This record gives sequence, structure tokens and C-alpha cells, in this order.
Amino acid sequence: MVNEFQISDMLTKLFGNISFSDTPAGLYDPLRYMIALGGKQIRPRLCLTTYALYKDKFGDDILQPAAALEVFHNFTLIHDDIMDHSPIRRGQPTVWNKWGDDTAILSGDVMCIDSYKRIAKAPAKVLPQVMELFSKTAAQVCEGQQMDMDFEVLSEVPMSDYMEMIGLKTGVLIACAAKMGALIGGASGDDCEKLYNYGYTLGLAFQVADDFLDAYGNEATFGKPIGGDIVNNKKSWLTTRALEKADEILHQQILDIEDLPVDTSEEKAFKIARMKDLYEKLHIEEDAKYEIIRLTDQALGYAATVCTGVRYEILRRFAERLVGRVK
Amino acid sequence: MVNEFQISDMLTKLFGNISFSDTPAGLYDPLRYMIALGGKQIRPRLCLTTYALYKDKFGDDILQPAAALEVFHNFTLIHDDIMDHSPIRRGQPTVWNKWGDDTAILSGDVMCIDSYKRIAKAPAKVLPQVMELFSKTAAQVCEGQQMDMDFEVLSEVPMSDYMEMIGLKTGVLIACAAKMGALIGGASGDDCEKLYNYGYTLGLAFQVADDFLDAYGNEATFGKPIGGDIVNNKKSWLTTRALEKADEILHQQILDIEDLPVDTSEEKAFKIARMKDLYEKLHIEEDAKYEIIRLTDQALGYAATVCTGVRYEILRRFAERLVGRVK
Repeated sequence: MVNEFQISDMLTKLFGNISFSDTPAGLYDPLRYMIALGGKQIRPRLCLTTYALYKDKFGDDILQPAAALEVFHNFTLIHDDIMDHSPIRRGQPTVWNKWGDDTAILSGDVMCIDSYKRIAKAPAKVLPQVMELFSKTAAQVCEGQQMDMDFEVLSEVPMSDYMEMIGLKTGVLIACAAKMGALIGGASGDDCEKLYNYGYTLGLAFQVADDFLDAYGNEATFGKPIGGDIVNNKKSWLTTRALEKADEILHQQILDIEDLPVDTSEEKAFKIARMKDLYEKLHIEEDAKYEIIRLTDQALGYAATVCTGVRYEILRRFAERLVGRVK
Repeated sequence: MVNEFQISDMLTKLFGNISFSDTPAGLYDPLRYMIALGGKQIRPRLCLTTYALYKDKFGDDILQPAAALEVFHNFTLIHDDIMDHSPIRRGQPTVWNKWGDDTAILSGDVMCIDSYKRIAKAPAKVLPQVMELFSKTAAQVCEGQQMDMDFEVLSEVPMSDYMEMIGLKTGVLIACAAKMGALIGGASGDDCEKLYNYGYTLGLAFQVADDFLDAYGNEATFGKPIGGDIVNNKKSWLTTRALEKADEILHQQILDIEDLPVDTSEEKAFKIARMKDLYEKLHIEEDAKYEIIRLTDQALGYAATVCTGVRYEILRRFAERLVGRVK
């Protein structure tokens, strides 16, 4: 069976050699730029990993659909960054910030279309199912982004709505990656569904871990300033949980902290510290860690119904790698 | 053989009953809005027309891919309207104007994805070819929009570049519609290519006719104020041809007219009149009519190599309907 190191090599080759059209350069340069910025390539890695559970031979009919997942993910980032007015991603200017909104819209569009070109390389006999899975997922990702934007104008959202939103925005594409690899690898329908659930639950764990690290991570490994969600009053698992647990007095304190000014770096640091004090009172840090473990265990439960031994281990290590930054 | 009236009935039913997801409403309302605004449904009509040359039975495996062409076209309009800052389309506020840029970006994205959901309904045995055709076309449409934006900062473009741009922005999707109907209908590869060329050339004729009508049309039937391209210094077949024919003195006059102010309706009318005087000196109106006829005849030449009799007539009448507004 192909192992993680071989999969890493395949990913390096796949994205090192990835080609887009050359002209018009104004349209395709941002695609090359986004892919060159890198990223964890979680989705293609997972797709190749679940494929490896069933097949040893890796051709374009699995490599290109795997690449499609990363290309599609980057398309959503380009458009999300316009909507969120985010100037920086992975330490570099975002596409709209570097080339303007119009280019970011249009290059995003052609990147979405490029992902379908790659999806079309799936074996003809499973192409209709792969297409259905991918398009359904792609629409759900947009629905998740819409929910996220709808949440911005609310002072509070129920935890069930928050989990639904991250399920759509993050969970379904990771689930799709896991299922697609299995589908192209020739897995049974039953295995495909279980691996979908493995990916979905792991995606939730990954997002909660990301929210956790935004407040409790290490800036160097996290890659962005700590406390950004708190500064920007961004809905996260932590605030959602805190508002859910708080009594009337603490509830009001949270809203008061959200109103604090953040013009200077001192004010930002003060706001972050005040919110983290409040999290401490409510044991939010522990709750988040517990939730990440609970979700990861649930994901591994699905994995264990699909395979055992070395095959199970590869799925366990994938999960560890994805959410293991939280200890 | 199914005739035009039956195709019109199918289109009415197809778009009258078209369904998109209900939630989140903020995401899907603009899709329903765009389809309800109507339009000429040229692309699905052509797709059903070329299919009808080969098959009499119309199921979802042709109707949904035909609908995909209209859905995709409307997605490009939503995003183009953001980039062009167009406030009105088909007499109603554009999506960004009604719901804001963020919604217009995201609803456009999900509309693009929706078109692929419908493409996936093509018969499994031709799905890989249909996918390849559609994705290649979709990317070219984006390339055409990029060229169009690149042209905005140039004072003049060669006619060959202008024709390439309208070929990408308008020609290829009409060509794709013609070929896709044939492909799903089971036509030979040779017929598919000829029908592609028929659609492409007809698409060019259609765009030149649109440019012509912008200056010489009837406001009531054209649907927008006459002279909009002239007022906005938009590159059109007419200006491109005029600059190509003009001597040094007339060339300078065109550039001077482009610099005229257009703040009041009197100023607009004056600018339009001055430019049309100049067109008259250069016989641009006649040149445009001749070009439309030349391209239409070329398209019909391709049609004549595919079929004769009543089958040829249906393609001839389609062309007549599309560019016949110019007499």
C-alpha cells in the first residue's frame, strides 16, 4: 500500500507541475500565484489517501480530481477574501489586494471552471457520481459562506447553527475529498458513505481546532496574529460556546468586550486579554479541547468501520496530522 | 421532426418550472430573479434545435444540459455587471445593484456550479465529451471578458483582436450550444464540428448586429437607450472599423469626439450625433450590415454541409431570428 511519504511526493509533483493557460496573463497569473502560496493541501491529500485504501496505481484519473479539490478550495478563498476584505493570506497580499476586485472575481471564476476540467478526468464509469458529489459539495460551500455572512449581523447564533455553518463551509469539502478518493478507487457505496462521514466529522474538528488556535495557538506555527477573531468580533466556536454558557451578567460582559475599541495595538491586546479572562471563567479552553477530541474520536469511529490495521492507521495519522496541533 | 413552436413550448416549460434550492434564500433569490427577468434564451434554443436534427425524444438528458447554457450565461451576466458597474439589465436593477456586490459574487458562483449540476444530466456515454466542451467554453468566456477589460485602457484595438474578443465572449458559448445538442443527439464528430462553426460564426454575426443596433436600432425593440456604446466610449465593431478606415484627420476627430463631456442628456445626444456623422462619412453603417450578412452567410454555409431540406430550414430560420433585426 502506498504510504504517506509517497503521497507527499505525489502532491509535490502534482502542484509543482500544475499548469494553467498562459493567456490572457492577467486572468491566469492569480491562479498560479494562489497555488504557489501553498497551503496544507489537506483535501487532495485526503483524496489520495482514501484512494490508496483501494488502489496502488495512481494515474491522472485520480490525481487530477484530487488537484481539483485544491483548485476549487483556492477559488473559494479568492472570492471569500474579497467579501471579507482580507488584505493578507498566508503572509502575502490577497488576490484582490494585489490585482483589484475585478481580476479577483474573474480569476476566481476561471479557477472554479478549472476545477471542473480536472474533475472531468475521473474514470468515465464513475464520472456521473463524481460530478454529482462535487457539484453538490461546491454549492454547499457557497451556502456556508452565505450563512457566515448572514451571521455577521447577528449578535449571537445558536451552537447548532454555528456547527451547521462550519459543516457547510469546511466539513463538506473534506468529506467530499474522502469520498471521492474511495469512489474513484472502486470502494463500495457503504464504504464511500462512511468515509464521507469520517471526512465531515474531521472537518468539524479541524475548524473548531482552527478557532481554538486563533485564541490559544502559537503565532509562528499558526501563521497569523493570535486573537484576530476576538479583535474582529468574528463568530467562532469559542464565542458561540461562551454565549451559550454565560449567565445574564457574563453575557452582558461579552457584549461589552465586543464593543471595546481596537484602533491601537494596546487596545487590541487589552480586548484579547479581557475576552480570554472571560473564557477562563467559563472554561471555554477546556470545552474546545474536549470538543475537538470528541469529534476526532467520532471520525475515527467511522474510519474503524471501513478498515483495520495499516489501512486504519493511515486514516488515524491523517487525523492526527490535521488536528494534532491542539494538545 | 420537432419544430420551432414545439421547442418554444419546451423552453417555456423548462424555465417556467426551473428550480433552485430554497435556502439560504439570500443566496438563491438572485438566481430566480435573473431567470425570471427572461432573455432571448438563444443558447438553450439552439441546443434543442441541433438536437432535434438527430432525435425526436426530449428528456432531461438534453433539457437539463440546454438549461445549463442559459444558467451559465446568466452567471456571467451577474459577474460582468459587477465589473462593468452596470446598474440596469433588461430594464431592471442588476443583482449587485439590488443586493450588493458580495451577494452578486456568491450568487454568481453558485449559479456557475448549478450549471454544472445540469450538465451532469447529459447521457453518461457522452458526458466526458460534454464536460470537456463545456469547461473549455466556460474558460474561454472568462478569457473574453478579460480581453474586453484589457481593451478598456487602450485607445484603439486591431479588428482581428476585436473579433477574437467577441468570439470568446459571445461566439464560443453559442458554438458550444450548437455542438452540445448535436453531441447529445448522437451526431457524428464531423457534424458536431460543422455545427460548432455554424454557431461560432452566427455568434459573431449576432454580436456585430448588437453593436450595430446600439447605434442604429429602435430603442423600443433594442431594450436599452440607443447610443450607449458611443456615450461610454465602449469598443464596438463600429468604432473599431471606423478607426481602421479613418485617415489621420478623421482619426483625430474620433478621439476628439470620445473626449466630449456627457454629463447632461443634451451633451449625450450631441456626442452620439457627432459620432454618427463621422460613421456616415466613413460608410460604417453599410460596412456593418455587409459584415453581418457575410458572417450569417458563412454560418449558413456550414449548416448546408450538415443537412438539407426541412432540417437546413430550421437552422436558417434560427439564424434569421437571431440577426434578422438588422435589415
